[in-house]
Amino acid sequence: MSNSFGKLFRITTFGESHGVGIGVIIDGCPAGLAVTADTIQTALDRRRPGQSDLTTPRSEADKVEILSGLFEGKTTGTPISLLIRNQDQASHDYAHVEHAYRPSHADYTYDMKYGRRDYRGGGRSSARETAARVAAGAVAAQLLAHYGIVAQSYVSQVGAVAVPVGYEQLDLNLIESNAVRCPDPATAERMMSLIRQTRDRQDTVGGIVTGVVRGVPAGLGEPVFDKLHAELGKAMLSINAVKGFEYGSGFAGTLLFGSEHNDAFYTDEAGAVRTRTNHSGGIQGGISNGQDIYFQVAFKPVATILQPQTTINDQGEEITLAGKGRHDPCVLPRAVPIVDAMTNLVLADMLLRSRANKV
Amino acid sequence: MSNSFGKLFRITTFGESHGVGIGVIIDGCPAGLAVTADTIQTALDRRRPGQSDLTTPRSEADKVEILSGLFEGKTTGTPISLLIRNQDQASHDYAHVEHAYRPSHADYTYDMKYGRRDYRGGGRSSARETAARVAAGAVAAQLLAHYGIVAQSYVSQVGAVAVPVGYEQLDLNLIESNAVRCPDPATAERMMSLIRQTRDRQDTVGGIVTGVVRGVPAGLGEPVFDKLHAELGKAMLSINAVKGFEYGSGFAGTLLFGSEHNDAFYTDEAGAVRTRTNHSGGIQGGISNGQDIYFQVAFKPVATILQPQTTINDQGEEITLAGKGRHDPCVLPRAVPIVDAMTNLVLADMLLRSRANKV
Amino acid sequence: MSNSFGKLFRITTFGESHGVGIGVIIDGCPAGLAVTADTIQTALDRRRPGQSDLTTPRSEADKVEILSGLFEGKTTGTPISLLIRNQDQASHDYAHVEHAYRPSHADYTYDMKYGRRDYRGGGRSSARETAARVAAGAVAAQLLAHYGIVAQSYVSQVGAVAVPVGYEQLDLNLIESNAVRCPDPATAERMMSLIRQTRDRQDTVGGIVTGVVRGVPAGLGEPVFDKLHAELGKAMLSINAVKGFEYGSGFAGTLLFGSEHNDAFYTDEAGAVRTRTNHSGGIQGGISNGQDIYFQVAFKPVATILQPQTTINDQGEEITLAGKGRHDPCVLPRAVPIVDAMTNLVLADMLLRSRANKV
Amino acid sequence: MSNSFGKLFRITTFGESHGVGIGVIIDGCPAGLAVTADTIQTALDRRRPGQSDLTTPRSEADKVEILSGLFEGKTTGTPISLLIRNQDQASHDYAHVEHAYRPSHADYTYDMKYGRRDYRGGGRSSARETAARVAAGAVAAQLLAHYGIVAQSYVSQVGAVAVPVGYEQLDLNLIESNAVRCPDPATAERMMSLIRQTRDRQDTVGGIVTGVVRGVPAGLGEPVFDKLHAELGKAMLSINAVKGFEYGSGFAGTLLFGSEHNDAFYTDEAGAVRTRTNHSGGIQGGISNGQDIYFQVAFKPVATILQPQTTINDQGEEITLAGKGRHDPCVLPRAVPIVDAMTNLVLADMLLRSRANKV
Repeated sequence: MSNSFGKLFRITTFGESHGVGIGVIIDGCPAGLAVTADTIQTALDRRRPGQSDLTTPRSEADKVEILSGLFEGKTTGTPISLLIRNQDQASHDYAHVEHAYRPSHADYTYDMKYGRRDYRGGGRSSARETAARVAAGAVAAQLLAHYGIVAQSYVSQVGAVAVPVGYEQLDLNLIESNAVRCPDPATAERMMSLIRQTRDRQDTVGGIVTGVVRGVPAGLGEPVFDKLHAELGKAMLSINAVKGFEYGSGFAGTLLFGSEHNDAFYTDEAGAVRTRTNHSGGIQGGISNGQDIYFQVAFKPVATILQPQTTINDQGEEITLAGKGRHDPCVLPRAVPIVDAMTNLVLADMLLRSRANKV
Repeated sequence: MSNSFGKLFRITTFGESHGVGIGVIIDGCPAGLAVTADTIQTALDRRRPGQSDLTTPRSEADKVEILSGLFEGKTTGTPISLLIRNQDQASHDYAHVEHAYRPSHADYTYDMKYGRRDYRGGGRSSARETAARVAAGAVAAQLLAHYGIVAQSYVSQVGAVAVPVGYEQLDLNLIESNAVRCPDPATAERMMSLIRQTRDRQDTVGGIVTGVVRGVPAGLGEPVFDKLHAELGKAMLSINAVKGFEYGSGFAGTLLFGSEHNDAFYTDEAGAVRTRTNHSGGIQGGISNGQDIYFQVAFKPVATILQPQTTINDQGEEITLAGKGRHDPCVLPRAVPIVDAMTNLVLADMLLRSRANKV
Repeated sequence: MSNSFGKLFRITTFGESHGVGIGVIIDGCPAGLAVTADTIQTALDRRRPGQSDLTTPRSEADKVEILSGLFEGKTTGTPISLLIRNQDQASHDYAHVEHAYRPSHADYTYDMKYGRRDYRGGGRSSARETAARVAAGAVAAQLLAHYGIVAQSYVSQVGAVAVPVGYEQLDLNLIESNAVRCPDPATAERMMSLIRQTRDRQDTVGGIVTGVVRGVPAGLGEPVFDKLHAELGKAMLSINAVKGFEYGSGFAGTLLFGSEHNDAFYTDEAGAVRTRTNHSGGIQGGISNGQDIYFQVAFKPVATILQPQTTINDQGEEITLAGKGRHDPCVLPRAVPIVDAMTNLVLADMLLRSRANKV
Repeated sequence: MSNSFGKLFRITTFGESHGVGIGVIIDGCPAGLAVTADTIQTALDRRRPGQSDLTTPRSEADKVEILSGLFEGKTTGTPISLLIRNQDQASHDYAHVEHAYRPSHADYTYDMKYGRRDYRGGGRSSARETAARVAAGAVAAQLLAHYGIVAQSYVSQVGAVAVPVGYEQLDLNLIESNAVRCPDPATAERMMSLIRQTRDRQDTVGGIVTGVVRGVPAGLGEPVFDKLHAELGKAMLSINAVKGFEYGSGFAGTLLFGSEHNDAFYTDEAGAVRTRTNHSGGIQGGISNGQDIYFQVAFKPVATILQPQTTINDQGEEITLAGKGRHDPCVLPRAVPIVDAMTNLVLADMLLRSRANKV
């Protein structure tokens, strides 16, 4: 198990889908930062199930309790511990999977690795664990805001329905204007329609989240292994259901020639160093260059479907299984705050690490 | 700086492109493993410049010296230190970039981060650093071979020229049969033709490397943050010029519905648990499931081109710059042994970590 | 801040003296270990305040709640989270120290480091934090017991009152037979008498805890930096009020000549390798050799005394201060379970790490 | 194996006593620090064998080669790699110990842990490894000097011959004035006399090194586990032959009452916060308070003696063994630069870590 992430701004999460609760310790948040439970709760509310008809109807208040690390409204430099108790634990829904290996779930691999597993709702492998990340990410966001850094992400594709333009042509203030968290209203409608159709067919659908970070100063990222995009990539790939990560020109960049792909530097009127294009995605040699950082994260369709499927049980015998319980037909809308959280956690860590770069 | 990778099988690299040399310490290699300088040298020879007309003519013997950690032909459990001295240091080729910020290179970001840089050949940001990774990866490969695990990778795309079939329809024994390291001979010819045309136009071209790992037992990978694919992704993204990573169905998987994407389990005639499809890419919940692991790595076109480009110097003044020195028109053929090395390093680490999973 | 300890069996603690509570996440405990809340509670009860007239009358039930990581009575390999809520928070006792820098406390240094502090009961610097260590140590002890390793410690000195013989001449089953946790009944009486006299003089007194570990197999410890005794030393020195650590012959060993100090090996009747003396304290070259491990830990007298003292406030002005609240006149009896806990945590970690030593 | 030390200023050492050489990578040294090979060589010369008739006559130039990390005389923020080749490898001296388990050496424990060992001169367990620490420590000292922090240590006891006064009554400029590195000339004479007598009796003798650090600002140290004294303690205990560590009042402090031991704060004429006594040894709550830091390190007598000893071989058979080769009768004089190095490494790391304490 490895339940910690970050080197200086470091989180450690715990908890299972149907246990007592989910939580996180943040170790290394600098002292003197104003943090309130409200800030954290607002972030959690974005990830909470049951926000719209596009998501699981599992009802969880996801109320955060701050156990330590704050005094008179500010951080003290000591570990911040956050607890979110589980409420709607419909564990009886899972008796049928106690011995089943659900297709494309982690049942089989957890059994192989640990010899046993908490089968209720996926136990530790449930995406419910990401609530702890979102709570911690809200604290990281506060730290970044102090330095003018803002991370935002949105749903840019659901199945084959994609936003036809890049992030720089969108108004990211519109992300929260619809249930699917796509700032392009027309595309959002088509996405929501696809999700509802998929849900009604008892199926699930995947998609892509695009992340954008603005206000990052040049100099964040720790080569040669902890390059900024390498840490972002690991962070995103650690989220449930993620299958791919690309930044800047990404996979499409392989189709360009060097003469097309290179980002020429220039000095703008204000005397700031900028690049004429940004195929680099704001990162060169693993270090931020002051331009916008942007990246894409691919999510597979949710593995739990309500249609019957053939698979095996833990005796190797063939069985037929149909999903029960309450599940998201599409994870993308609720993935947005999770991508935000992981982005904030990476940047907060890199911000602190960069303080040791020079004498 | 962060120049270490891995938790239990841990490497730390050092060295600059035009300094004394490049090297690595491997800390945590178990005792009792047979390792020879020849094994390491063979891996280095695959990455060495000047192997064909597709790569830089920089002439480096890349001769490895083992400084510690072996006794009577076997590892002792103590750190293994490897040194590769630089030979062909044509540093005078770089006087023109001392004050220039080359487009899409790390000159500007290193200056912003550290306040200074070794500008000769890119200094620490040069891909020459990956020689150390390849040397260490050869030791990791020996460890994995002991347990029947074999990683292979190949060039699956150069520019728009792509292998038309998946890895499972290729004979991976053919990877070394041509200079571009593509096991599909017909596609290889077209790739080599494209690389030569690009070189003659004084341009560069990117592409994709596909990695495949066979023989991995179920149970490797450390959720929730050090998932097997998250570590692989970070490892690949830490390689120079990489812009994206996907595993299993990857970005294309976002276009499938859950009912299409799910991998049904079955028991084969030998009684082994297998899946009928492998969209999961051999990893579920961040843990290997015993099926083949496969992934794709996107490389951008090399930033150094011999055409003149407009950019700025460290005073913010506009300058015109043309690449000098000896450069690869396409990094893909030499990227294959680097992808292999990072794959081996991740798996060796995960193999050792998995020993602590159960009482 | 650094609130984590251990590499593979790794704990992270949180909480302040007068906040919501104290807790810990254990990450890396192998799956399949039987653990109950009772086991943990029993350990906590040994550290709990108010056990006798020798300790602070602060009344804390120190009731542990298991938040995650167990399923059907056994560990699952996922993080184990434990929470102990604070109850008897007499925070009004601390208003007088809000701006005071108490002598030999951490008030001044926390202010210098973090710019602010939770002054109530010492906040994070309070020894109350060690409750989390004791809870985690109880889980580590379960793991060690599975492999036949048993750690015990006892009070060997209070002020100038010392046990006149070595651990091997004592019956360690008597540790719990008296309130001071000294297995030599006659010395225990003198210790308790000294503590009561000291308390009545409104003063405090220090002393020494001796630790003994039996059943450790040869091979634990990770040179050259994480030597077994170096990790034990760090663990002990991280406990509040500890001023020194020695193992085996320790400081007294500096008075012996090599010919007196060396431990000759021999083979006993059962064919086991043993040493005729054990000045090495069971550790050679940083690795356990199978003999008993023993060490000593020096605790200073508690800094809070009820006598008036002259010091300064956070404006640099001279003030007179007298301790209020409920404090231990001697920390030694309650230090015993803390030393046990840290010993168990070090050994559990080293046990898991040793699994990666050989092919 | 764990061959790395430090979190932000991090070293990784390699090499064996009779292999190719000894070396170290420093990762995390800030950019812009002036460092020369001379500075490092000067430190190595203090540790070098053959400096006087008190130490082993093994002849090693211990010439350092800088392999990376410097450019135009200053650090670049990239890893600094240092190599010291072995020269005087009289490996034939060790044929007699190939199968022997020398008393109080690490032969037996390395065999138990790794299944094999490089028996020549102790291999990796040799104190020759500390040359790498001294080289790295010289770089750390440069960083600390930049901030006005100076660490010094000296031999305060050899066998029963001890300096009769505390460090504050000594002129530490006299440390290098004699071969035993004791700044009290009269005591130094008695120490040297004892060492020569011991050598002539073919025996060895231990002793104590006292360390002093001046100029440390308040605020260094990372509670609750990486307390400044806990890291210093681990660092010292990781040095070969060390059996104990104490700081401030140490073990003697257990004999004082709280009213005697507490360090009262006051404001001096210059307005600086100081303490009237310094039983705390400059560290409170694990954080430096701006007063002098001082500590003691106990070294056992060297295990290799030239007298015949009875022990066993790796078949468990009783054998008689006498030391051959060239050995120190007393390790203390050469331990001084090693203690200095580890002190500097701890403080450099804590200095960088403290930069992340506040917003």
